[in-house]
Amino acid sequence: MKLGRLNHVGIAVPSIAAALENYKALYGVVDDDITPVRDMPEQGVKVAFIDIPNSQLELIEPLGEASPIHKFLEKNPAGGQHHVCFEVPEIYAARDAMKAQGATVLGEPRIGAHGTLIIFVHPKNSNGVLIELMETPKGDH
Amino acid sequence: MKLGRLNHVGIAVPSIAAALENYKALYGVVDDDITPVRDMPEQGVKVAFIDIPNSQLELIEPLGEASPIHKFLEKNPAGGQHHVCFEVPEIYAARDAMKAQGATVLGEPRIGAHGTLIIFVHPKNSNGVLIELMETPKGDH
Repeated sequence: MKLGRLNHVGIAVPSIAAALENYKALYGVVDDDITPVRDMPEQGVKVAFIDIPNSQLELIEPLGEASPIHKFLEKNPAGGQHHVCFEVPEIYAARDAMKAQGATVLGEPRIGAHGTLIIFVHPKNSNGVLIELMETPKGDH
Repeated sequence: MKLGRLNHVGIAVPSIAAALENYKALYGVVDDDITPVRDMPEQGVKVAFIDIPNSQLELIEPLGEASPIHKFLEKNPAGGQHHVCFEVPEIYAARDAMKAQGATVLGEPRIGAHGTLIIFVHPKNSNGVLIELMETPKGDH
């Protein structure tokens, strides 16, 4: 297992719309840099990506009462860095490698916001950082 | 002002040495991916960078009693995501643009770990995310 590209930094926010206004005003983000806001009910979140020259920021807003982001936003009401996502060539191989090293993989491989399989590795295994591993989109890069 | 490359994600850790062992065991990082650990007494931190194909992770450990990282590690004893750093072409122009938008810039431009000028923008201005802006190293990219 070897980390591939840093696909995105995930940032939890109370409102994607408000966060986008801020990124436009302060950091020169324009509409062409932003993917449409998308509901992901199976994950309990809404997401939008901001394209950066070499990577992306993923803005994450809670969707529904059971959203896993509510707890994070209770602790960090303004929002904050939520996870870092790296690409890997094959998610099941990555999952097996993580487990073989004794890491705690959260849930089974499932389809993420980029349409490829993802897993999350518990923050306790990576110095408090929640790490998402994402199968590299086919045809990308 | 327009965000350039995502230069690195800054991760505060209680021990860079222990964190590196973890990244080697779990994420396939090898010695060639890691910059030597460097003391930055003027910032109150030790740092080491891990090269990722398109970016870097910056591991930050407190140096000295007055380190600005102690407070973060009190709240997050295992460590955690500390800041995100984007490149900009010219730091004084970026600083002026931030201030013109009413953002709180922390301190004056100063030399950062990559040898170019940096500033930090207060987390309250960016949904709880501490953002570092770094003048793009000359000759890079």
